Amino acid sequence: MQDFILNKDRFFDPNPGVRNFAREIYQTIKDLPIISPHGHVDPQIFVDNKPFPNPTQLFITPDHYVFRMLYSKGITLESLGIPTIDGSPVETDPKKIWKLFAENFYLFNGTPSGVWLNYEFNIVFGIKQKLNGENALQVYDELQEKINTPEFLPRNLFEKFNIEVLSTTDAPWDSLEPHKKIKDSGWKGKVVPAFRPDGVTDISNPSWKQNIKKLGEVCGFEIDSYKKLIQALEERRKYFKTLGCTSTDHGVVSAYAHDLGDVEAENLFANALKGTSNQNEAEAFTAHMLMQMARMSVEDGLVMQIHAGAYRNHNKLIFEKWGPDKGADIPTTCEYTKNMQELLNRFGNNPNFTVIVFTMDETNYSRELAPLAGHYPAMKLGPSWWFHDSIEGMTRFRQQVTETAGFYNTVGFIDDTRAFVSIPARHDLARRIDSNFLASLVARHFISIEEAIVIAKDLTYNLAKQAYKL
Amino acid sequence: MQDFILNKDRFFDPNPGVRNFAREIYQTIKDLPIISPHGHVDPQIFVDNKPFPNPTQLFITPDHYVFRMLYSKGITLESLGIPTIDGSPVETDPKKIWKLFAENFYLFNGTPSGVWLNYEFNIVFGIKQKLNGENALQVYDELQEKINTPEFLPRNLFEKFNIEVLSTTDAPWDSLEPHKKIKDSGWKGKVVPAFRPDGVTDISNPSWKQNIKKLGEVCGFEIDSYKKLIQALEERRKYFKTLGCTSTDHGVVSAYAHDLGDVEAENLFANALKGTSNQNEAEAFTAHMLMQMARMSVEDGLVMQIHAGAYRNHNKLIFEKWGPDKGADIPTTCEYTKNMQELLNRFGNNPNFTVIVFTMDETNYSRELAPLAGHYPAMKLGPSWWFHDSIEGMTRFRQQVTETAGFYNTVGFIDDTRAFVSIPARHDLARRIDSNFLASLVARHFISIEEAIVIAKDLTYNLAKQAYKL
Amino acid sequence: MQDFILNKDRFFDPNPGVRNFAREIYQTIKDLPIISPHGHVDPQIFVDNKPFPNPTQLFITPDHYVFRMLYSKGITLESLGIPTIDGSPVETDPKKIWKLFAENFYLFNGTPSGVWLNYEFNIVFGIKQKLNGENALQVYDELQEKINTPEFLPRNLFEKFNIEVLSTTDAPWDSLEPHKKIKDSGWKGKVVPAFRPDGVTDISNPSWKQNIKKLGEVCGFEIDSYKKLIQALEERRKYFKTLGCTSTDHGVVSAYAHDLGDVEAENLFANALKGTSNQNEAEAFTAHMLMQMARMSVEDGLVMQIHAGAYRNHNKLIFEKWGPDKGADIPTTCEYTKNMQELLNRFGNNPNFTVIVFTMDETNYSRELAPLAGHYPAMKLGPSWWFHDSIEGMTRFRQQVTETAGFYNTVGFIDDTRAFVSIPARHDLARRIDSNFLASLVARHFISIEEAIVIAKDLTYNLAKQAYKL
Repeated sequence: MQDFILNKDRFFDPNPGVRNFAREIYQTIKDLPIISPHGHVDPQIFVDNKPFPNPTQLFITPDHYVFRMLYSKGITLESLGIPTIDGSPVETDPKKIWKLFAENFYLFNGTPSGVWLNYEFNIVFGIKQKLNGENALQVYDELQEKINTPEFLPRNLFEKFNIEVLSTTDAPWDSLEPHKKIKDSGWKGKVVPAFRPDGVTDISNPSWKQNIKKLGEVCGFEIDSYKKLIQALEERRKYFKTLGCTSTDHGVVSAYAHDLGDVEAENLFANALKGTSNQNEAEAFTAHMLMQMARMSVEDGLVMQIHAGAYRNHNKLIFEKWGPDKGADIPTTCEYTKNMQELLNRFGNNPNFTVIVFTMDETNYSRELAPLAGHYPAMKLGPSWWFHDSIEGMTRFRQQVTETAGFYNTVGFIDDTRAFVSIPARHDLARRIDSNFLASLVARHFISIEEAIVIAKDLTYNLAKQAYKL
Repeated sequence: MQDFILNKDRFFDPNPGVRNFAREIYQTIKDLPIISPHGHVDPQIFVDNKPFPNPTQLFITPDHYVFRMLYSKGITLESLGIPTIDGSPVETDPKKIWKLFAENFYLFNGTPSGVWLNYEFNIVFGIKQKLNGENALQVYDELQEKINTPEFLPRNLFEKFNIEVLSTTDAPWDSLEPHKKIKDSGWKGKVVPAFRPDGVTDISNPSWKQNIKKLGEVCGFEIDSYKKLIQALEERRKYFKTLGCTSTDHGVVSAYAHDLGDVEAENLFANALKGTSNQNEAEAFTAHMLMQMARMSVEDGLVMQIHAGAYRNHNKLIFEKWGPDKGADIPTTCEYTKNMQELLNRFGNNPNFTVIVFTMDETNYSRELAPLAGHYPAMKLGPSWWFHDSIEGMTRFRQQVTETAGFYNTVGFIDDTRAFVSIPARHDLARRIDSNFLASLVARHFISIEEAIVIAKDLTYNLAKQAYKL
Repeated sequence: MQDFILNKDRFFDPNPGVRNFAREIYQTIKDLPIISPHGHVDPQIFVDNKPFPNPTQLFITPDHYVFRMLYSKGITLESLGIPTIDGSPVETDPKKIWKLFAENFYLFNGTPSGVWLNYEFNIVFGIKQKLNGENALQVYDELQEKINTPEFLPRNLFEKFNIEVLSTTDAPWDSLEPHKKIKDSGWKGKVVPAFRPDGVTDISNPSWKQNIKKLGEVCGFEIDSYKKLIQALEERRKYFKTLGCTSTDHGVVSAYAHDLGDVEAENLFANALKGTSNQNEAEAFTAHMLMQMARMSVEDGLVMQIHAGAYRNHNKLIFEKWGPDKGADIPTTCEYTKNMQELLNRFGNNPNFTVIVFTMDETNYSRELAPLAGHYPAMKLGPSWWFHDSIEGMTRFRQQVTETAGFYNTVGFIDDTRAFVSIPARHDLARRIDSNFLASLVARHFISIEEAIVIAKDLTYNLAKQAYKL
């Protein structure tokens, strides 16, 4: 059997008139350090620096991109060993799960998950066969062997991946102990927190009261008013900054931002504490808190990120048995022109403010987001997000955004992964797609190859570093 | 004059790096049998098996895709011989109509109707000139001559087209006499019904009461309550199944599904019988009936199809004079994430249930439909529908759906035509576009040629056959 | 340093199989006269026929496409010399402004503004270097020198650009003195007005009362009722026609059209005069006036244009200091199927009526606009508008519209510019993109090269001329 080796021209336009430029551009950026300012990797793995347990727990169980596809074809989450909330039994044999995954690996043909996994197996772990039902256990054993070697310990991989900075995502009540330990350990890897206050800004969150309590505890005072909440958030932001934090992140259903005034905000907070809030109040409070978060960003310089439009936990059966982040978050339509007007009018002309906006509703790229980013100095566009962090998705983003917003109102590529070993796979794919997109401009005499090479480095490295103040 | 012959590489990427793979893939699927599980062909033509009357009545009069384009350029429906409801006079000379059509045939340049018609003329009927005003009557005579030969009788065409199964679309009160006669005739052609209850589930339909009466008659009991309606539908589904029916079809403005409970459903039914229903009640009743239809599908195994988003009979002048299906159905925005949540939560995790969803609002492909189909085991995506059953439309569908839902949460290609002789034209086009799409993945080293060939057969044949349980 | 010369194949597909056809098609249309029936050039420049003051006032200050991009990167409008409403000071040194622009010219890489500016510099003005911070003042001086020669006087450029007809955009109260003077001057250049009544049909416009007064003055009677407004508009349309006007233009937030009846219209007018109107009334009045404007078009034959969906003056800080048209108009979602039904039902089947519809919400192309234009005889599609008058934007328009509406329900290319010297740049770009689009159809054997050449001329010249009755 022939060795399975990823083609060096993969994802480039097969037309030599484009491909040759794509190769040339890609060569200049492929080895640049990785800037990863928005991720969901658990920082504890760099504290412990222990081998990952096994291939199944490395590639399948924690990655809802992977198991949701298997689930969609009728493979139960029990049989994939996804842990239940109530501890009811699921498959525990990692090899049995791996076999099931391998037999159905063809489902990932044509998907970015397939592309990333092939990169991880082939390039990160040196597996020389494409995974299938037959070679499943042989590949498993090869992977397990590698995982157990020092070369594949988390810190070594971090360095091998050439990550210049990795940001985690953290709740305001998080102690950030892992970040402190990493800092104190003497290890040079730069791992910083990001401030994500959704758990206390969304009063419809079932854990809101509990979260408020935890936040109060970490602050050392009871949060019994809106005013105290604001004080707590300001203090925690300051604390996060001491550990290298440069950004906040806001996952919201709608990008609507509106200042209610302190009196109304206090009323909504009081109702929430009493447990009498309704959905309208929750939406109003979130909209108000976006304004407050922007105001704080102007004051303390933290870069604000808004991720809008995910309908979380759409499948209640799955949510009740397995909890959130199980592949059942579904996008909905988003609106930015009207929803963000108050925020942009108040802060969007302010040179101290940066707001980076993400969407899963691609209709907004050319209609609303590019025109807004192409006008307001404070606003920049995050790259294509989540489902659209893909070959066609990234291409559509560039095609629909660039002509109106240019390249320099975007923040370049940043990944958004929970799967640590997918980071180099995702950045390599983005570098290839950006190289190819720029090559198509060069081949059509839209820009010169010299200009393309400058832009390529900006998209890969400079823009993210500057936008996130790293 | 040179013979007009369709190029063997038509619709393939002109880049040889893609085209060669497209040719290779297409060769493996071009002769596969046609699975046509959702069409609008009149089954009576296979009972009678008589020659089609003339080219005008074969290609123009019954096909609103064709005459709406002529109408849009100011050619009246009277001059095209489209029969009026009240019998007011229209052109009756088929040659005069044909001439008018031929003179304006250039309007179809760049449209799928043009592509299909050229296939039908050139490949099905062997016409060796491209139709225009000058050769109009000569082509007419050639077509008429062929039509009158046994080779072009409906059953012979059915076999020549290599149709493995053809589904019609039928109302619950239909006797399905043609289907019985076909079965009894000894002819081997497989023609099965599909169950489309819109006429009795939409209480705002002006013929609703009449339809309810007809349904009662065919069932042998009066339908004077919601409960009786449910009983009637369950009985008719059972009857349809005896004649080979495997699917239901639901044409709805909105995909909203919501269980009202029996009491409220009875109330709405009673108001409808009294003729006092309003638009809100009609929408609520339709939403409720979608839940009931899904429930029945879980029980009896019929595959549920939802076609949402057509604003029917937009042009009242045309509707009043010529009736429905005259090219004036216009798409509107659709929503699926919220509208289908109750249905998917109740039935979407059930292995006995299959729901196939179609849209004309392409914004839903990547935003809502692919993520939903990429999660819920019961949900699959129908191919690009109606206006988008075209070269660019099918390509957009694959580009926007595949990366999130993969290939295996779609049902492959199925046509949706009233024009019987267009069936091979439509399937050939789809096979070419899918071959080309897969070739573009192979040429970019996204998948291998071997994988592409497997997927091509699935998209052409296996997926539709499995999804529709044929 | 090598001369900077625009490549003769620019914007063509780099695949020779497409490019060769694109070249062939482009050759047949590149020298056709320019039809420009919808622009915003000040007609006074052809009355005065004086040299443009300097490069900064020719290319930067009047063009919000240009300075909004600079503003988005934090360059203040003051430093760009954009005049303030209250006369507060801004930069007045044109060379300093030019230098700033040149240093940031890289921001326009990948944008249509960059493409147009390069054409204007290189082809219109013969500048043989690409503008940058270093050569800024040298280029400035070269441009200034050319501007001062007779060859670059407005009338000479008009003739050099081969403009067959140029329409301006004018308010109903405009005296059209420049148009009369041009006519009387004996100069052969055809410059005609277009009738744009937004200032008196939108009662929420802060200047509405003032506009009504001006309209009354020019008509010679006081407009103190809705009936008088209708009379005034009818008279002014007649007057505009005497100066060559063939079209009206309506910039509306929503395409909603609805006849209120005379009594309700009078009430809303009365409230507006009293200053007691609310937003709902304003929307209703605009919807009513669209119906009236369509009714008048049926009667007087003026072609109706509807431009829907721009949220004007989104950035209040900019609006208050600098006024409208400063790059802060942001698109919003649009709806046409339901909103235009009443108008299309009343007038859309009338052979005397033409309505040309534009959108910035590209989701409507395939979903609503192409199906509507592919049915109603009166409705045609304007080309991709504003932000989407670009390489990718024009391509998306053709890809998403053609298969449903064909080529012949569109009006070909028309520009929409305030920047006079950008006119040939914009038409050249459109001719290249249309050539390339048609070439891609030829290369895929969708249409023949002979058919493509006919269509290319229609898209470039005939369709606009016919649709606008020029």
